[in-house]
Amino acid sequence: MAPITNGRVLFNAVPEDYPVPGKTTVYDTSETIDLENAPLNGGILIKVLLLSIDPYMHGRLRSPEKESYMAPYTLGQPLTGAGIGVTGAHVRGLLLHQEYMIVPNLQAAMLGVIERDPKLDWSVYIGAAGYPGESAYVGWRAYSDGKPGEIAFITTGAGSVGSMAIQLAKKDGLKVIASAGSEDKVKFMKEIGADVAFNYKTTDVREVLAKEGPIDIFWDNVGGDTLDAAMEFAAKNARFIECGQMSGYNSGYQPMKNPALIFEKCMHFHGFLLFELRAKYAEAFQAEVVPRLVSGEFKSSEDITRGLDKVGDVILAVQKGTNTGKAVVRVADE
Amino acid sequence: MAPITNGRVLFNAVPEDYPVPGKTTVYDTSETIDLENAPLNGGILIKVLLLSIDPYMHGRLRSPEKESYMAPYTLGQPLTGAGIGVTGAHVRGLLLHQEYMIVPNLQAAMLGVIERDPKLDWSVYIGAAGYPGESAYVGWRAYSDGKPGEIAFITTGAGSVGSMAIQLAKKDGLKVIASAGSEDKVKFMKEIGADVAFNYKTTDVREVLAKEGPIDIFWDNVGGDTLDAAMEFAAKNARFIECGQMSGYNSGYQPMKNPALIFEKCMHFHGFLLFELRAKYAEAFQAEVVPRLVSGEFKSSEDITRGLDKVGDVILAVQKGTNTGKAVVRVADE
Repeated sequence: MAPITNGRVLFNAVPEDYPVPGKTTVYDTSETIDLENAPLNGGILIKVLLLSIDPYMHGRLRSPEKESYMAPYTLGQPLTGAGIGVTGAHVRGLLLHQEYMIVPNLQAAMLGVIERDPKLDWSVYIGAAGYPGESAYVGWRAYSDGKPGEIAFITTGAGSVGSMAIQLAKKDGLKVIASAGSEDKVKFMKEIGADVAFNYKTTDVREVLAKEGPIDIFWDNVGGDTLDAAMEFAAKNARFIECGQMSGYNSGYQPMKNPALIFEKCMHFHGFLLFELRAKYAEAFQAEVVPRLVSGEFKSSEDITRGLDKVGDVILAVQKGTNTGKAVVRVADE
Repeated sequence: MAPITNGRVLFNAVPEDYPVPGKTTVYDTSETIDLENAPLNGGILIKVLLLSIDPYMHGRLRSPEKESYMAPYTLGQPLTGAGIGVTGAHVRGLLLHQEYMIVPNLQAAMLGVIERDPKLDWSVYIGAAGYPGESAYVGWRAYSDGKPGEIAFITTGAGSVGSMAIQLAKKDGLKVIASAGSEDKVKFMKEIGADVAFNYKTTDVREVLAKEGPIDIFWDNVGGDTLDAAMEFAAKNARFIECGQMSGYNSGYQPMKNPALIFEKCMHFHGFLLFELRAKYAEAFQAEVVPRLVSGEFKSSEDITRGLDKVGDVILAVQKGTNTGKAVVRVADE
């Protein structure tokens, strides 16, 4: 068989604010691969099927001098991100944003073999049943201390993390206020059980919280003014779970207006990163969440775009919030 | 016996920034009391001996429209604050800032009878063995999770709360960095065990933390730029104990510069107020701290001013940090 194109998405230029498809990242077709004769050197050839596009990726599209909690992408090299590939069995982990990749072995590449429940698409395994779902689970179980009747306010409630947080909070018997940026998303949040769902672009967050709060738990995926508002309407002893601050990824983080509220209201803030806590909660997640996704008790929503060349567009859509549901790029069919 | 003057310190005017003695508060001698014939109506006469002057008092010298976590003082009425009085037995609790007061009974006034160890002055019982010491104890035990070899940075380390926090951290085997605002205070912090003690007015906090950090625990009594610096030099999974934010009491609270560090570094913030947690730790405090004050293993320092008419000056000194050690006003001898 003749060599075929091995498409890749390369980091091309540090963006000024929002990532620009075709400039920040470029789809590159200059490499080829001979699938039958590629030198494996004892390694394994993986065909990339699905790639997860996540908000945090913007933070990796930066210049290497700038320090942050995750390593920057390398200019001229393919992006990496959560994904599912196939090499005989299906594997999941951090994959290159290219059509085919060769790894020395699964263990060294930290790729795990996974099986699929026939009722769930593979895409769910990088969404609600994957890292985003696990993020919500770990943060909620480790830090919410949620009790029946308490009130939780969950931001980006239609996203893959937020929607799982909503469903966990409802399962634990809490009243849930949830926000997102479109009417479609509001509809989805109501479908999955949010008691109060609103579009933060058209409804004032402080009005909602004044009426429906005070809040005992805040799931923060956005930061900025929403975080300030949540602090203003926090109950005493409120728990704030800091999962991310989307509002700052493109235009820079905003300060917290009144940190003195932390002691005045005896508040607790918990920042977390999935990979610090994942092992501890992995088994419980498999037992508590995955069967509920299979049975349909928990719902997930994916927004699947076909084609590796669309990665740049989807990265931008995720930053702008124009996708509805977990953003996934389908690189190839089985 | 003829009636005598019953001096009082009244809240007279809301301060613009720093409280002004004689304006914000006035010493008033217009009331008299006949100690032998005052109508008790079944109540108890208390002679006030010692009053604690604390940083939080500034927050109570405000107009009643302004909401905050503690009730405002009432214009034209005496201040109240922690103190020790005598009515046969010695009692401790919130006392009026006046020489004599009548309460219906001890329970209704939430005053507790206390005994003194002969080795400790009564003033210690509103300092290291009183609310400030308890504040440090409760915050440290509930939220520090301090482990031997970890690094704690403690602000206002020469004050009654900070100095107890330093000694608890050292007892738990941590390395302690401590800051305060004068060379005398630096000397005292070294005496009580701080490994690194510095004057924040003459030494750059970031230089100290870059050399001696990163820090695992931050005891925050100051907020503002010091809090920002502590976050910059925090280790992963750092615990920030939010006890107060002195820097904001007079000029307004400053924002937190980069709240995204909370999730990037998996940080934990815990705000607390003594009276929320006091009952839970009261017995342990008596067992762990008071005997060490008696034996001299733990040290305390009081800055005692004689005369109820000096309350306004001491309130200002506490806000400006010009006192050294726990600020106490001695209203009367036994």
